[in-house]
Amino acid sequence: MEIALLGGTGDVGKGLALRLIRDTDHAIVVGSRDEDRAVQSASEYEATLEQLGRDRDVAAAGNAAAAERADVVVLSVPPEYAPSTVETVADGLDDETILVSPAVGMDRDAAGFHYAPPEDYDSVAAAIADVAPANVPVVGAFQNLAAGALSDLSNDLQADVVVTSDDATAKERVRGLAEEIEGIRTLDGGPLAVTGLVESTTPLLIDLAMNNDGMHDLGVTFR
Amino acid sequence: MEIALLGGTGDVGKGLALRLIRDTDHAIVVGSRDEDRAVQSASEYEATLEQLGRDRDVAAAGNAAAAERADVVVLSVPPEYAPSTVETVADGLDDETILVSPAVGMDRDAAGFHYAPPEDYDSVAAAIADVAPANVPVVGAFQNLAAGALSDLSNDLQADVVVTSDDATAKERVRGLAEEIEGIRTLDGGPLAVTGLVESTTPLLIDLAMNNDGMHDLGVTFR
Repeated sequence: MEIALLGGTGDVGKGLALRLIRDTDHAIVVGSRDEDRAVQSASEYEATLEQLGRDRDVAAAGNAAAAERADVVVLSVPPEYAPSTVETVADGLDDETILVSPAVGMDRDAAGFHYAPPEDYDSVAAAIADVAPANVPVVGAFQNLAAGALSDLSNDLQADVVVTSDDATAKERVRGLAEEIEGIRTLDGGPLAVTGLVESTTPLLIDLAMNNDGMHDLGVTFR
Repeated sequence: MEIALLGGTGDVGKGLALRLIRDTDHAIVVGSRDEDRAVQSASEYEATLEQLGRDRDVAAAGNAAAAERADVVVLSVPPEYAPSTVETVADGLDDETILVSPAVGMDRDAAGFHYAPPEDYDSVAAAIADVAPANVPVVGAFQNLAAGALSDLSNDLQADVVVTSDDATAKERVRGLAEEIEGIRTLDGGPLAVTGLVESTTPLLIDLAMNNDGMHDLGVTFR
């Protein structure tokens, strides 16, 4: 299948792109609001992987064109732009396309990072589902992976990815895709309505990294 | 030191009592609103540990008397009773006493469990701190340990306990105490104001256990 990483020039998009290119054979298209930046990032990712002996073509496009051609569209954009990005690309989505939300809204004050979903919603995923076309399944996934841990390909991931959706088929497809990435185990988090619990784990991970010497780019495992 | 487990007849109190009795040499007092029930539970815990070759006296008292004599007071009561329990025992607390909040408020609907802190507060710990005497340090800890995993002493815990407090000394004492329990690693979660992130991990653990075959009594680890 083809996977579009909207905002694929950012930290999380880069990390997911590098891992997907290295560990899977799916076609990857880097999307960006600025097509030139998408082209630049795609070349950079190709070069990084080529140094590791993995010679693959990575496509690049504007967000809308990237979403239109893809089977799975990952909204790796800052959370405040996630709903508007969906509106931008909505015309190219259909019931064969899965929208994936890895985004987390956070606030920071003197105490540390706090969870801050979009106003009037209890998660970024819920805000995305609200603006997505009704026939397009929305899946929450990848929220608890640190961009730094993803991007450093010498780092062995050993992390759980909790996947939520109201669409069982879409959830299974995203779980299968995520588990192709080495070191990721997926868990069924339940329906989209509980995604806020998954998203709110991310500021906890950042607070723990800030408060504990020697811990950084943390992931989470459940057992 | 002496540790009071208020509501020590309940699931979490029982699990913490059994682990603390088995793994530490601290004096344990089981507290309850009903002193008779406290006596009954204390005898039961003594008997369970005696079968494992650990012969120890476990004290029992009403919640107020238990809190008054203890150095560390664990509020292992249902979250809706945590603030009123603090008010009940407040006269016996002083700046030598540490109040520990393991409680988590949750709602349940068709989608699963959701995080539900007390009205007007962003965590149970914050609600407790609000009613606790100003000189009594409040520490959040133990929220993410499953009662079933704690109570089954044949189960090797391998779980992280995130500890939050605005009082550095109290936080260190509770971390030291928690790490005396075999299989627990503690992490510094930061100040009390971020405790909601720790508490909200618990409904996620329950949802994951509900949605994934073979998973139950889950704990969490960060790495």
